[in-house]
Amino acid sequence: MAALSRAALARLRAARVARLATADRRGRPHVVPICFAAEARAVYHAIDAKPKGRPAAALRRVRNIAENPQVTLLVDHYEEDWRRLWFVLVRGRARLLRRGTARAHGLRLLRRKYAQYRRGLLPEHALVIAIRPESVSTWGLGL
Amino acid sequence: MAALSRAALARLRAARVARLATADRRGRPHVVPICFAAEARAVYHAIDAKPKGRPAAALRRVRNIAENPQVTLLVDHYEEDWRRLWFVLVRGRARLLRRGTARAHGLRLLRRKYAQYRRGLLPEHALVIAIRPESVSTWGLGL
Repeated sequence: MAALSRAALARLRAARVARLATADRRGRPHVVPICFAAEARAVYHAIDAKPKGRPAAALRRVRNIAENPQVTLLVDHYEEDWRRLWFVLVRGRARLLRRGTARAHGLRLLRRKYAQYRRGLLPEHALVIAIRPESVSTWGLGL
Repeated sequence: MAALSRAALARLRAARVARLATADRRGRPHVVPICFAAEARAVYHAIDAKPKGRPAAALRRVRNIAENPQVTLLVDHYEEDWRRLWFVLVRGRARLLRRGTARAHGLRLLRRKYAQYRRGLLPEHALVIAIRPESVSTWGLGL
């Protein structure tokens, strides 16, 4: 298991949105924007109360992780001055947490980071996805 | 093959960056931020002259597509007012174009969209990735 470097972790902590790539058992990739909270050895995401149109277990990211725990998380910065582009890419393994202390810890971190979650958009029963970094790549000038 | 709706296409045309998810033959997902140009029946991306650290053919997105042409492209919008979030997700098949009229057409569209490319960041020999949409999902209020 790889720990995130201090520089990578600082970028992840400051970022408000990441993109989470998963793939089903047949290798079809999927990617969605996510809210997340990062520590050196874990990244947490929860199925929150934003309208989803289907229950948590039916979401493609959740089904894919149940079939194939390999995931890649991307945090990047875009602006028109391309000398200032950067990204942090975290490859790892995801687990679906439906109970337990790791899940409660993830929810706490998410509520600390997002006022929207403190105001009620993160149900107490929310399914949490915990990602353990296995390797980290960075690109761009700032890192 | 699915064509992009007018609303989805308008969002893609206005977006300056997308995230492209690919997967290798073993189903390990990958995702990178990309510059791109969209038409109703094709999305184009080129391996440009931003520093990459390795030749085009060695880039993971290119190797993955050679192994597994299934890709997913995401264009999304984030802001702190979560009622205004949206995304457009395009699933499709990617082809690597090293010559031919489709490749030249893609390069023209990319240069039209990005002044950075017109100023020289898109070499004449650039490898082009062309994605044919197979299905499109949209989420969020605006669509």
